[in-house]
Amino acid sequence: MIRVTVWNENLHEQSNKTVQEIYPKGIHTAIAEGIAAPGIEVRTATLQEPEHGLTEDVLNHTDVLIWWGHMGHDKVADEVINRVHERVLKGMGLIVLHSGHFSKIFKKLMGTSCDLKWREAGEKERIWIVNPAHPITEGLGEYFELEHEEMYGEHFDIPDPDELVLISWFEGGELFRSGCTYHRGNGKVFYFRPGHETHPTYYDKHVLKVISNGIKWAANARGANPVYGNHKPLEPIKG
Amino acid sequence: MIRVTVWNENLHEQSNKTVQEIYPKGIHTAIAEGIAAPGIEVRTATLQEPEHGLTEDVLNHTDVLIWWGHMGHDKVADEVINRVHERVLKGMGLIVLHSGHFSKIFKKLMGTSCDLKWREAGEKERIWIVNPAHPITEGLGEYFELEHEEMYGEHFDIPDPDELVLISWFEGGELFRSGCTYHRGNGKVFYFRPGHETHPTYYDKHVLKVISNGIKWAANARGANPVYGNHKPLEPIKG
Amino acid sequence: MIRVTVWNENLHEQSNKTVQEIYPKGIHTAIAEGIAAPGIEVRTATLQEPEHGLTEDVLNHTDVLIWWGHMGHDKVADEVINRVHERVLKGMGLIVLHSGHFSKIFKKLMGTSCDLKWREAGEKERIWIVNPAHPITEGLGEYFELEHEEMYGEHFDIPDPDELVLISWFEGGELFRSGCTYHRGNGKVFYFRPGHETHPTYYDKHVLKVISNGIKWAANARGANPVYGNHKPLEPIKG
Amino acid sequence: MIRVTVWNENLHEQSNKTVQEIYPKGIHTAIAEGIAAPGIEVRTATLQEPEHGLTEDVLNHTDVLIWWGHMGHDKVADEVINRVHERVLKGMGLIVLHSGHFSKIFKKLMGTSCDLKWREAGEKERIWIVNPAHPITEGLGEYFELEHEEMYGEHFDIPDPDELVLISWFEGGELFRSGCTYHRGNGKVFYFRPGHETHPTYYDKHVLKVISNGIKWAANARGANPVYGNHKPLEPIKG
Repeated sequence: MIRVTVWNENLHEQSNKTVQEIYPKGIHTAIAEGIAAPGIEVRTATLQEPEHGLTEDVLNHTDVLIWWGHMGHDKVADEVINRVHERVLKGMGLIVLHSGHFSKIFKKLMGTSCDLKWREAGEKERIWIVNPAHPITEGLGEYFELEHEEMYGEHFDIPDPDELVLISWFEGGELFRSGCTYHRGNGKVFYFRPGHETHPTYYDKHVLKVISNGIKWAANARGANPVYGNHKPLEPIKG
Repeated sequence: MIRVTVWNENLHEQSNKTVQEIYPKGIHTAIAEGIAAPGIEVRTATLQEPEHGLTEDVLNHTDVLIWWGHMGHDKVADEVINRVHERVLKGMGLIVLHSGHFSKIFKKLMGTSCDLKWREAGEKERIWIVNPAHPITEGLGEYFELEHEEMYGEHFDIPDPDELVLISWFEGGELFRSGCTYHRGNGKVFYFRPGHETHPTYYDKHVLKVISNGIKWAANARGANPVYGNHKPLEPIKG
Repeated sequence: MIRVTVWNENLHEQSNKTVQEIYPKGIHTAIAEGIAAPGIEVRTATLQEPEHGLTEDVLNHTDVLIWWGHMGHDKVADEVINRVHERVLKGMGLIVLHSGHFSKIFKKLMGTSCDLKWREAGEKERIWIVNPAHPITEGLGEYFELEHEEMYGEHFDIPDPDELVLISWFEGGELFRSGCTYHRGNGKVFYFRPGHETHPTYYDKHVLKVISNGIKWAANARGANPVYGNHKPLEPIKG
Repeated sequence: MIRVTVWNENLHEQSNKTVQEIYPKGIHTAIAEGIAAPGIEVRTATLQEPEHGLTEDVLNHTDVLIWWGHMGHDKVADEVINRVHERVLKGMGLIVLHSGHFSKIFKKLMGTSCDLKWREAGEKERIWIVNPAHPITEGLGEYFELEHEEMYGEHFDIPDPDELVLISWFEGGELFRSGCTYHRGNGKVFYFRPGHETHPTYYDKHVLKVISNGIKWAANARGANPVYGNHKPLEPIKG
């Protein structure tokens, strides 16, 4: 059983009519319903809840955390971010979606500005698989298309991904490293680009398949539990 | 169900008394018995069989191939090597053990000499986990020890691994990148160092655990099936 | 002084009028003239010369070899390929251009099929820099364009590059990892995509800048000279 | 001309007699004198100076910053750290030495805890080169030894290095990834392990050679200057 928590700042849904119509129950609920499957236990959490819904207890019972944020990055308490950061290093998987590239947690884990080019023109995005043996690409074809999406363009200021899985082609002439994996401590991190709030992206079956594959990949981390600090010698040391 | 074929050149077992005593049924049988588990279907194949036991049919029904060879690398027919190579690129996992570093198939997949330093002194090897979130390290501690093993030392002439999972410390002063993963085409390759024929290494529970984890990791490749060659445009091209 | 040898199969230039008009002295000469600079000593070699112009002596006096081939891959003698391969492992840099993706030397160094999608439609290619701190991108802008080029599309069946430097956007809807670096033994390898024979690509100042930068990068390899084989212990080993 | 600033917290030198005897003018001065060479312009800066000696002006005239810190990590002002961080992302090279693994700047750039095992037993360290084509290894042999050093052991909680160049073998049975490179934004980062304050490590010719090579490598970053934010389409977008 993989325990997933879908976190959403849930702000555009309160103020923007288009977003309300597309995601009447919020982006978090659309994702939670879209990834529902045997072996997956999903809950949601939002910015508005106490401790943003990410208490010690919730995080300790979360194998994979999904993160959607945009206009409210600064409203997330540092204390909660530090707690999430520590849980990732201890082994919790993290999937950061779309505008989450600028979230405090992603920037803290990457160490870079995570800046990029962007344009809201509702243009076509075609996402190509460049690592066909990666479990995140299971069951996808060679590429899939989103008719209308926001554009994100290079240079994307991230560390060189441990594995580059997906690259997006945009109608307007740009491209973007759209599916990137990282190890951080005992945890695995997956950044996945699509999902502008004014497009019904999180109902797309390919997008949901990628997120579902990402959950399985990110939860798959149960390696050694490292011990740090002062260490007695394992072999004799000459005087 | 993961279908595993354990291949062994099975030569030392015919001529060397020490090896016969340690592996009376051959290294391949020791490994096959050691990795037996629900969800794993194991068969063995050896150099002496027709087509070295690696017919089209066997390979087409193999999800992960394990390879042990040493003194007989040159006796393996190129035709069989090309067949194995093609199957890896199509998605079969491959685990190359110990002296298999010099096998035709490993050198063909790596593109380098795969040369290294070595010494048969029965010294202590301590294998450290350096990527604790990797599924290959599941259930291991921080390190494990083999009291007596052959030494392999750097520089190991391989491409920079996609993921470096294990490094060995040797009593005599050397170290070695002992657990290395690669993607090649649709297939995944895992090189794992231990296993000199005059030591009972393939009965060690940690060694068997690593191989078992490696099987699960290497079999986990069912991504997109790429199409190559001439391609019609997906978008209109201006004259 | 960096000693560069530009190798070209020089076949299209003999039979194709368009190619003759664009490259009257051959692709090799266009490249050799285009990269001429203080500190660079350039010579050329072609398939038609004895030993394809790649004698022991020439290779031993080459710091960086540039490779252009297409219809004559099979005409290159294996003996010469093995010689080039060995020189790369000993430290010679290698820059493989365009259709050289299917050359014997590139496939031997990569270990994969090196297959890809392609289309000759003279479409627009826009090459984006995704690793702006890499010396190969020195002096380039954020991207550069080639008005008319052959398309190469993903999946490109290569090992995950050590460094991914450039990605191409194509008008017809595909994209391609166009600038990829690898270490192989003591040598450095750079694959650079553009350069179809029917387009004047090797007169483009950005393309020439990338190749010139690549030469400096690939020649920059003077590390330790590894020793392989049996090795005496550096520390006492207990009996 | 490469402009290098050597930064040192300069605290042990004030309070510890052993350190005073080994580094009477401070670790920063020993390093500054040790790397002096034509083409290198060196200055030093310490925690005690206004703005820790790392003013806007100093950083804007620094190509490569070398960092040594240990007991005073928390005494470094966040404002200065943010300034250094921004300069790295804009292209300044950074070489982090030894106990700098726990410095604010290194943790901020890595995104992990950067924790490790350690032991002060004055034991032998043998540093092996595992990437002999890397410019940081130029002029070194296959390995070099430090008779007496502090031990650092795995697991070292860092992101998988872009390039792993050096690994240390320790007498007491541990090993450590001792030479690791990263790209962060337009800047290059090199972590290099040796240099405990109670050992004369920064007079060792191999250690100084590695640092000098690292300076050349880290300064070699003059790629494209990315532009971020809203971006006009480069190609027409259908309505």
